[in-house]
Amino acid sequence: MHKVGRVTARRPVLRLRLGGANGAAPTAVRRPDSLAVEEPLELRIGGRPLTVTMRTPGHDVELAHGFLLSEGAIAGREDVRTARYCDSLDEDGRNTYNVLDVELAAGVAPPAGRAFLTTAACGVCGKASLQDVRARSRFAPAEDGCRVAAAVLASLPDRLRAAQRVFESTGGLHAAGLFTASGEHLWVREDVGRHNAVDKVLGAALLAGALPAAGTVLMVSGRASFELTQKAAMAGVPVLAAVSAPSSLAASLAEELGITLIGFLRGDSMNVYTRADRIVQ
Amino acid sequence: MHKVGRVTARRPVLRLRLGGANGAAPTAVRRPDSLAVEEPLELRIGGRPLTVTMRTPGHDVELAHGFLLSEGAIAGREDVRTARYCDSLDEDGRNTYNVLDVELAAGVAPPAGRAFLTTAACGVCGKASLQDVRARSRFAPAEDGCRVAAAVLASLPDRLRAAQRVFESTGGLHAAGLFTASGEHLWVREDVGRHNAVDKVLGAALLAGALPAAGTVLMVSGRASFELTQKAAMAGVPVLAAVSAPSSLAASLAEELGITLIGFLRGDSMNVYTRADRIVQ
Repeated sequence: MHKVGRVTARRPVLRLRLGGANGAAPTAVRRPDSLAVEEPLELRIGGRPLTVTMRTPGHDVELAHGFLLSEGAIAGREDVRTARYCDSLDEDGRNTYNVLDVELAAGVAPPAGRAFLTTAACGVCGKASLQDVRARSRFAPAEDGCRVAAAVLASLPDRLRAAQRVFESTGGLHAAGLFTASGEHLWVREDVGRHNAVDKVLGAALLAGALPAAGTVLMVSGRASFELTQKAAMAGVPVLAAVSAPSSLAASLAEELGITLIGFLRGDSMNVYTRADRIVQ
Repeated sequence: MHKVGRVTARRPVLRLRLGGANGAAPTAVRRPDSLAVEEPLELRIGGRPLTVTMRTPGHDVELAHGFLLSEGAIAGREDVRTARYCDSLDEDGRNTYNVLDVELAAGVAPPAGRAFLTTAACGVCGKASLQDVRARSRFAPAEDGCRVAAAVLASLPDRLRAAQRVFESTGGLHAAGLFTASGEHLWVREDVGRHNAVDKVLGAALLAGALPAAGTVLMVSGRASFELTQKAAMAGVPVLAAVSAPSSLAASLAEELGITLIGFLRGDSMNVYTRADRIVQ
């Protein structure tokens, strides 16, 4: 039976190893391997298809809430009336659990989508993207007076990894985690798509009535893009930390909205691009 | 002046290092840092906005061709009449070079977008996604009889890295490269978005009249997703190799279309998920 939230799949793999320079013979071993599951999720608003994203099944209601939050359509639980799977049957008559329909509360408008960018005064450009996020954001992370110890930040990559249950078996999942300023983890989610992992975490915070996410750190396993910084901003997260590099536009957006942006958070060091005043050593 | 193809931006950064257990004092050094540039690109078809993608500027015409190829709208140079930047001015009156308008040749239909998936018989599901790629693909990678030596494959991560000019300075760019079966690099492109790097490479191949990309290996710096496998399929690439893990749906699509899918290509070993018959040791 098709299970909701199946996150790994077994599959045979041929493991090849080259022969060594010392004359060792090449090897080829067939064995089973675990892969991270990727399946399409169609999000509908009031029955109308809005978008399809490729995601790892599970926490789909959180994903939908986080996505709508990021787009500026909703900012709290009260903006959504219902969110439920449609009866989308595969050819064997089983529900795919790949179509989620969201009914917004009265007076809440569905997201306009990215095309709106073209109405910006300067055409489409980085500056217009920043202004757009500022215009749509309901929270003010710039005013968040939280302080985070550098030692706590340095501990987050290990804490995130420790909370990643599926990565170990597949190596194929990105992770995002929301932590308190003292380093306790609130929500950690994994997904084949990094933006999905962040949407699931922020959707969980929204569903818990925890927005704006004051005094928190959003930790992501890879790089910090404009899109991830936008998601942090829309949830009112004051500190975004990434294991790898930020992009130029991520740093510009963090500066514009007063978010502390940290990159290359590895071992005992880190790069702080904006609002270093929140970090205490 | 705003330059076309500016790929890095300088920005001050505060480099923090924790104090050591042996009593070493914590350090905080301010210095300039290079970040990978991320800017929106709006793609228009015949003047109508189709999509906005966040990308690293440069090779935008290739990006547009690769994107339209991946969506099944075009399969060769002759399907595009013109591709040129619009006059999209920022507030200082400078062209942003962030809007590209493509005129398709007579009789070529613009892509329908992802929403089409909802018309699939089984609703939206992985199987429908596979069938959709098969239906839209103009080439038959399954029939490609090329052979690739395992030693050549093992050399590709280093060759890709050697051809990455910007990564060294920012750590923030993904790379994709198209190689011959004997390991010579044809095109290598970098971008903040992995899908963009692949679109630029495959767009370059299309513009060179080199599709289907018979006898080639597409090497990507990260993981192998459904989306990247779809792009390889649409260009007729017979071998897709990734440094990290593939997803379940990437492996299913590679199997469906007869593409050799290699993951965890590191050091002297690799995992072969599909069509191992193309690899010789």
